[in-house]
Amino acid sequence: MSIKDTLAAAKEAHDKDKEQKLREKYMQMAIKEAQKAAAIREVPIGCVIVREGKVIAKGYNRRNTDKSVLKHAEIDAIRDACKKVKDWRLEDCTLYVTLEPCPMCAGAIVQARIPTVVIGSMNPKAGCAGSVINLLDMAGFNHQCEVIRGVLGEETSSLLTNFFKDLRVEKAAQKEAEKADAAAEENEESKE
Amino acid sequence: MSIKDTLAAAKEAHDKDKEQKLREKYMQMAIKEAQKAAAIREVPIGCVIVREGKVIAKGYNRRNTDKSVLKHAEIDAIRDACKKVKDWRLEDCTLYVTLEPCPMCAGAIVQARIPTVVIGSMNPKAGCAGSVINLLDMAGFNHQCEVIRGVLGEETSSLLTNFFKDLRVEKAAQKEAEKADAAAEENEESKE
Repeated sequence: MSIKDTLAAAKEAHDKDKEQKLREKYMQMAIKEAQKAAAIREVPIGCVIVREGKVIAKGYNRRNTDKSVLKHAEIDAIRDACKKVKDWRLEDCTLYVTLEPCPMCAGAIVQARIPTVVIGSMNPKAGCAGSVINLLDMAGFNHQCEVIRGVLGEETSSLLTNFFKDLRVEKAAQKEAEKADAAAEENEESKE
Repeated sequence: MSIKDTLAAAKEAHDKDKEQKLREKYMQMAIKEAQKAAAIREVPIGCVIVREGKVIAKGYNRRNTDKSVLKHAEIDAIRDACKKVKDWRLEDCTLYVTLEPCPMCAGAIVQARIPTVVIGSMNPKAGCAGSVINLLDMAGFNHQCEVIRGVLGEETSSLLTNFFKDLRVEKAAQKEAEKADAAAEENEESKE
């Protein structure tokens, strides 16, 4: 390898590393959003939208709290981004989301013509960026996105597994408490 | 055919006719919504959501006016319906829409678990209820809708063709006017 080639390879590796670090930085911000969802007992999914190096919109899942199917992290962020950009087209934005989008969110991304979508972990049961189907890259639509998967994959995935584990533990404890209450009541009645 | 069979067949035909008339009544209301879009120079698409025989939400396309990708007729109606029902699930609702839904709207319908969708005309280029793809009835998702197509098909279709025809005529007239202005200006300059 010539010195020139070595330098070019080193530069390429450096640029890739820088790009990856930037992606991880924004995914970390999406994780922070997801944690806001967990704090209100919602499935922890978070999203940020970046334009020209700036976060212009954020969102986290509030579906149960707000009793609206539209309160997914991505939809909330897309709504705010449109407001900021003053356009229904988000053609120079990148969307970061902790979990692979559902059909509604994937559809909204395509409709808003977002060019690049960065995903934390995949959702094999309902994901529409390659799991059940890939709506983000369908030849039949008039827009296709570049999709980058697995950015902070472990962190984004453990967010969800920890949430559901905590939920199970909580439910089991609640059941135990109810059982104890019923037994105490029965004991009380037998004394009367 | 026995008298009993004849009566049963007559009843069935009567019920079917009644059901179709009801569908047309609600589709007519969706057309009225679409006309509101046309009145503000938006592509005329309208939607109503019916629950227990009552229209609980309406919507029409305002995407350019409101500069938001989320301002499709169906999304607006679904938002209002969730507010009315106080639930993200719209499990006992029927959605009527003048044009086959896009991927975002079809996804929202699936996410809200709407059981029945009634469509006016199809959208071969971008429709997601059978044209490009059928997101409303995909085995991979955890909800599938019953889809009824072609209700007031001609009326809903001519809404769109008339809108685009008017737009073309308008644009041509504008071009002609600009040409005439330019010619008059040139004439004025040559006199100076």
